[in-house]
Amino acid sequence: MKHAKKNQETKVYGRNACLKVFEKRREDIVRAYVNQDGVFLYKDLMKFLADQKLAYHIVNNDEIEGITKATHHEGICLIVKNKELPELKTLLHANPYRTLILALEEVSNPHNLGAIMRSAAHFGISGIIYEAKVPVANSGAAMRTAEGGAEVVPAIQVTDWAHVLDLAKRNNFKTLATSSHDGESIFDFEFPEKAILFLGAEGEGLSNSMMKKMNKLLSIPGTGEVESLNVSNATTAILTEWFRQGL
Amino acid sequence: MKHAKKNQETKVYGRNACLKVFEKRREDIVRAYVNQDGVFLYKDLMKFLADQKLAYHIVNNDEIEGITKATHHEGICLIVKNKELPELKTLLHANPYRTLILALEEVSNPHNLGAIMRSAAHFGISGIIYEAKVPVANSGAAMRTAEGGAEVVPAIQVTDWAHVLDLAKRNNFKTLATSSHDGESIFDFEFPEKAILFLGAEGEGLSNSMMKKMNKLLSIPGTGEVESLNVSNATTAILTEWFRQGL
Repeated sequence: MKHAKKNQETKVYGRNACLKVFEKRREDIVRAYVNQDGVFLYKDLMKFLADQKLAYHIVNNDEIEGITKATHHEGICLIVKNKELPELKTLLHANPYRTLILALEEVSNPHNLGAIMRSAAHFGISGIIYEAKVPVANSGAAMRTAEGGAEVVPAIQVTDWAHVLDLAKRNNFKTLATSSHDGESIFDFEFPEKAILFLGAEGEGLSNSMMKKMNKLLSIPGTGEVESLNVSNATTAILTEWFRQGL
Repeated sequence: MKHAKKNQETKVYGRNACLKVFEKRREDIVRAYVNQDGVFLYKDLMKFLADQKLAYHIVNNDEIEGITKATHHEGICLIVKNKELPELKTLLHANPYRTLILALEEVSNPHNLGAIMRSAAHFGISGIIYEAKVPVANSGAAMRTAEGGAEVVPAIQVTDWAHVLDLAKRNNFKTLATSSHDGESIFDFEFPEKAILFLGAEGEGLSNSMMKKMNKLLSIPGTGEVESLNVSNATTAILTEWFRQGL
């Protein structure tokens, strides 16, 4: 298992992403860029930076756009040390009761991952495990789209799914995936105490080889008029029902 | 109320969007562009075009990209007459039982609308009413993202919300919106037989003036760790519970 090198930094931008960093781990903030409005909008954060003798630069929107390479920065960019992530085995160990973890077989796009992190944070998912060539979850784009969710749900990059499946089995996690054709309705299925929900790439869905290794296939009932939901909306539909069953 | 002018055409692209046009209203197809693989992949469609003496052009992917101005065309583009949309009052009249309609106060982005149309089609929503400067639902980008859902759920562009609210009242539709602070849990709320769910713009949410006119505010229960879900995922969460209650 890989995780982010120590001392690596991310450019975090967007109001909610930055405020969540400030709420959850302000000690990791290295410096800040804000526009003129931001000095007032983010005044608690500005006061903290001043008290800590950390640099903050008041710049215009074009400069923030140049730094972040993004237009949706909402007038703020923080340079933040990367979060320390738990070990995979800790994630699968540490949860005493009702736990759902998401496993993304392939992440092609930081915005898709960000949208999933946002829903995952909303519904109380314990962690996300994902395969990707680079640590997508650490990107500013994923963190901005997650609207603060990236600070709440640890997202661990993996390369070896056999190891994940082995750890899942040894820790009594049931593995779940969606199949529009063969699955049991999420409304009839009673979610187990500990489960990992596997999700495939947009377009192709979960690979056949992985599908065969699942303990259970689920379907999201509907009209059948479209083949499926997109990956972030399919995730939200399942998390909605999972959350409801836990009430 | 406005709707699309007769004889206007859209460039529809993407496998599922095109196959759904072929399934639902093949008589509206004017001509086609496919790549070499498409001749085999879409052979029923090709046969239909040949039988009808409609033109189809076998072109390469770059040419399809040039025509569609999009990369996600999956080797096919159909020139299709715009769908005739029902009148708003017909939409609110014609539904004999359990009906949910979505109303989008502001649509800034065809991909957001497309994602919502896809979920709406999956869960059996009767129609979408939206305010926008241009008929976004007719764009190739929205139709591609909807993955066929645009052929199933009529999306009607409006300019006058007072008229919509008046029609809703006269046809016994309850108006619903989400509020993360004040709403009743979607899991406790019993959805009425006929309802219109109002959704605001990404970021700002529904305007205060519209919020005050709603019959009921709903919340999507969660951890509170993020302020809200994005508009397409919030829609999916609500549609999931609405659909479940109808089973």
